Amino acid sequence: MRYEESTIEGRNAVLEAFRAGKTIDRLFVLDGCQDGPVKTIVREAKKGDTIISFVKKERLDQMSESGKHQGVIAYAAAYEYAEVEDILKAAQEKREAPFLLMLDGIEDPHNLGAIIRTANQAGVHGIIIPKRRAVGLTATVAKVSAGAINYTPVAKVTNLVQTIEQLKEQGLWFVCADMEGEVMYRQNLTGPICLVIGSEGEGVSRLVREKCDFITKIPMYGDIDSLNASVAMGILTYEIVRQRNFK
Amino acid sequence: MRYEESTIEGRNAVLEAFRAGKTIDRLFVLDGCQDGPVKTIVREAKKGDTIISFVKKERLDQMSESGKHQGVIAYAAAYEYAEVEDILKAAQEKREAPFLLMLDGIEDPHNLGAIIRTANQAGVHGIIIPKRRAVGLTATVAKVSAGAINYTPVAKVTNLVQTIEQLKEQGLWFVCADMEGEVMYRQNLTGPICLVIGSEGEGVSRLVREKCDFITKIPMYGDIDSLNASVAMGILTYEIVRQRNFK
Repeated sequence: MRYEESTIEGRNAVLEAFRAGKTIDRLFVLDGCQDGPVKTIVREAKKGDTIISFVKKERLDQMSESGKHQGVIAYAAAYEYAEVEDILKAAQEKREAPFLLMLDGIEDPHNLGAIIRTANQAGVHGIIIPKRRAVGLTATVAKVSAGAINYTPVAKVTNLVQTIEQLKEQGLWFVCADMEGEVMYRQNLTGPICLVIGSEGEGVSRLVREKCDFITKIPMYGDIDSLNASVAMGILTYEIVRQRNFK
Repeated sequence: MRYEESTIEGRNAVLEAFRAGKTIDRLFVLDGCQDGPVKTIVREAKKGDTIISFVKKERLDQMSESGKHQGVIAYAAAYEYAEVEDILKAAQEKREAPFLLMLDGIEDPHNLGAIIRTANQAGVHGIIIPKRRAVGLTATVAKVSAGAINYTPVAKVTNLVQTIEQLKEQGLWFVCADMEGEVMYRQNLTGPICLVIGSEGEGVSRLVREKCDFITKIPMYGDIDSLNASVAMGILTYEIVRQRNFK
């Protein structure tokens, strides 16, 4: 979770950073530069949340630390992912029953940022996200999290179902948010718990849902379909807070 | 709340619509047109959420209903505001104790849209916003509300303090969200109620807070300052839902 910024210079190094999936906050490109490698870099940058600035050679020369920028300089943000074990250890150190969050495919960086922010305030010990088909800790996520990204650990795992099985062995209960569930106010949400929230469009995937111990829902009285993912997460998470701390 | 789209054509009519504060969803401008009035219109459009398209004369001619577009055509969205009385009537018709929301200066259209969406799902009868220093029912708000803007009435009033006094006479309790308050789980939030949420930066203004019957807060355990306004609204609103319907 530590946040450190590093400067990457030169075409190969910058392209490599993009391809390795590093979070590039800002990219500076020599204005008017049109050759192949630079175009490829700009294309990669546009795929992500990178802010691109086209600047004069003098500016690049000034910014350069190595003196060999070749027309491109990138600022990379490094948010370190935690391990699931670190999250459990954090709970143990606070002498609290583990309170985890698992996000099954959140794709919108604004939602992920808002979720990390709320998780931090609710005292959630850590968040588990999948490696695939989900947004990671990008610069936008960091910004929307209002700094919470520096405090609340986020672990990235290859297989959510496997992680659920491992954590169940350690005594955690898995509760899945889904409209098919029982109203959350009528359920017992105390003890070592992991709340599973699905993606904006699809909800929790079938395989993950089948592994959960119970299914919970927010009662809805409206004329529309659903709630925003980060608002729903806030409501569910705070019902767990109420049951843990105020019952 | 009814949503109707109307076409406005011609320089004076379009400029007038902007100046009257109408919500313009889209603006079509003759490509290459650089004279004064058109520039003024484009400047006004950029202040709001209007999407601007620069198109060829043939396209404008095709779109025009009057045949006198003078190089500009605007699509205006009209979301009708409700009256406070309509909101109380809606509660009465459902034979429910009034459940209102008052927003003291929400400025971000994404927050207002998300709040209207959550209010609709929570069964809130209506929302009161101030005329000044707050975002109104713009096209962005409508989009983020996911359609809820068509169902949950929003009333715009000149003076929040006066409205509070009038509604208190009709038996409503006012509960203000503020970090100085008592934890919401320990309060009685049943009966005819209006929840007051402050602006993103400033919170609830002093005059409004002083008129409220009690102050409530979300317990926070985090390392950062606050919650997102729409997430906080969701958590507070659903604690009221729990106490009204599940106690």
